[in-house]
Amino acid sequence: MMVTRAAKVLFGDAHIESAHGAGGKASRRLIEGLLVPCLINDTMSELNDAAYVEAEGRRLAFTADSFVVKPLAFPGGSIGELAINGTVNDLAMGGAKPLALVTTLILEAGLAASELEREVAAMAKAAQRAGVPVVGGDTKVVEHGKADGLYITTAGIGLTDPRLHLSAKNVRPGDQVLLSGPIGDHGITVLLARGELDLEADLTSDTRPLWPFVSTLIDVAAPGLRWMRDPTRGGVATALNELARDAKVAVVLEEEAIPVRPAVRGACEIFGLDPLHIANEGQFLAIVSPEYADTALEALRNVPGGEDARRIGEIQEDPKRVVLARSRYGGTRVIDMLIGDPLPRIC
Amino acid sequence: MMVTRAAKVLFGDAHIESAHGAGGKASRRLIEGLLVPCLINDTMSELNDAAYVEAEGRRLAFTADSFVVKPLAFPGGSIGELAINGTVNDLAMGGAKPLALVTTLILEAGLAASELEREVAAMAKAAQRAGVPVVGGDTKVVEHGKADGLYITTAGIGLTDPRLHLSAKNVRPGDQVLLSGPIGDHGITVLLARGELDLEADLTSDTRPLWPFVSTLIDVAAPGLRWMRDPTRGGVATALNELARDAKVAVVLEEEAIPVRPAVRGACEIFGLDPLHIANEGQFLAIVSPEYADTALEALRNVPGGEDARRIGEIQEDPKRVVLARSRYGGTRVIDMLIGDPLPRIC
Repeated sequence: MMVTRAAKVLFGDAHIESAHGAGGKASRRLIEGLLVPCLINDTMSELNDAAYVEAEGRRLAFTADSFVVKPLAFPGGSIGELAINGTVNDLAMGGAKPLALVTTLILEAGLAASELEREVAAMAKAAQRAGVPVVGGDTKVVEHGKADGLYITTAGIGLTDPRLHLSAKNVRPGDQVLLSGPIGDHGITVLLARGELDLEADLTSDTRPLWPFVSTLIDVAAPGLRWMRDPTRGGVATALNELARDAKVAVVLEEEAIPVRPAVRGACEIFGLDPLHIANEGQFLAIVSPEYADTALEALRNVPGGEDARRIGEIQEDPKRVVLARSRYGGTRVIDMLIGDPLPRIC
Repeated sequence: MMVTRAAKVLFGDAHIESAHGAGGKASRRLIEGLLVPCLINDTMSELNDAAYVEAEGRRLAFTADSFVVKPLAFPGGSIGELAINGTVNDLAMGGAKPLALVTTLILEAGLAASELEREVAAMAKAAQRAGVPVVGGDTKVVEHGKADGLYITTAGIGLTDPRLHLSAKNVRPGDQVLLSGPIGDHGITVLLARGELDLEADLTSDTRPLWPFVSTLIDVAAPGLRWMRDPTRGGVATALNELARDAKVAVVLEEEAIPVRPAVRGACEIFGLDPLHIANEGQFLAIVSPEYADTALEALRNVPGGEDARRIGEIQEDPKRVVLARSRYGGTRVIDMLIGDPLPRIC
């Protein structure tokens, strides 16, 4: 069941640094060089947001995420809300209706009970909105100075829809790239909420449950739905680079078609960031076969909150394993994965 | 599905402190006063180690625990091994065969990669021993000084055995209390490993997977098996007080019958601790109906590592909600839950 160490560990970094948690290239190095070869069942060939487990003839999705966002609360959301939506969304991206959550808290001694109560209430509200019960949990306390207020981990199980066969391996040239709405809101909101920068913007996190969108897509376009991913850490660029690599295809984006709010674009220009690298907590990418693309897009736009969904590009045969963006002037640039960690502790 | 705030929040402490994570009275106050009324699905009436989820007509057990033990490694185990066994054991205590685990890491920037690799290898080895695959995970990195090396959270799902009906509500006067082996080894080992005390002992943590014992008990005594619990934080005293309260019975222990190694007893005497309050990571309590008690005990003793299993007491009608210990001289003392946090970060 497990693979042995000597054969596969390729992680050569001496120490853990911020970038190993940023969702970009360094994270890949850690995950693929150390964690997967040592730990993960080697029958799991693709690294998806949720793993699949066969239980009594039915396919369950199973996932867990830890949340360490700083600050704990920010415009439009807080760690408690992220901790529910993030896990619900990992299940949704696996094509699974959320069935139950369990949550664990690591609390720093000295945390105000009122802050904890606020976050627990935020979790309860988010779970209610997502229609999923929290059925259990665990609490640990560490000394003052050994955490940062609170860290939350949420695990979730969901029931996969038998009509779906989601896998990068099913993605084909000609497939269309759909995006549910404007990108970068979450990352830039959290960055500004830290107050370290003398910049304000009328911007809120996009955190929300994605299951309503996915459920609709399954109803109208299940046979054409190939792959989904919510572009959190590392942003759209990293998610699509992983797809290009896993599917051995090119992802060609129309840069013009990608919705980015002016406040996000402005902040990115000031800080030298690319909106395609900024984390989202309430958007997702779907790869849909050409014959289902129009139906899927129209359905997405009819779900409340999906009005800004767009077709942003397509899958091509070559150049393999590359993400390209075409500008309105006809130029083309290569979009790389995130490198380094410009925005630590974003979720 | 969720209960509203005003009705039930009773948590009056102003700040979180160490004792809220110790598994004793303060933990109860936090869990029952804030977390459960705000967050937990109110169809869940008992707070067990694992929650039950109905999925397609089959009962799944679902659990998650965070691990923050200090130091990361100690004689007989380490955080990685605990993080697998702890979750496997919560499933086992729910009568469920472990099916799959997912694990999340919160890493402190600056952690040596060799330490991480050691713990990941320990997790892999423990998972292999327990016969359960790790199917996925998540990694976050926080700044130096915002964690303590690494914290691990492991979630698990398991399939419950349909022959079992475990609940404090099924416990009856006359039922027998079985214990799988000597208590206090884990807590005292970790305490001594901190090196703050000028004391050495030839002692190792008892961390191990409990499913082999539970599986055997189910085979020979399922109809008589009422309730199980692994007495981790808060020890045997806290676990049995929770049982006495939930089942509205008295638990009467024969103090003499409870196995405690001399090194544990000696350390407890020096520090003014009661072995009944010390955490275990590889022992469990089982309440078994009188007609199955001998069969169950004999079966436990025949599982490798179960040689020291004992009958340590019985359930009586009165005094309700109380745990008593009878000494060999005929005296009786009341055994309370753990109060305060004499041994923080024990798991």
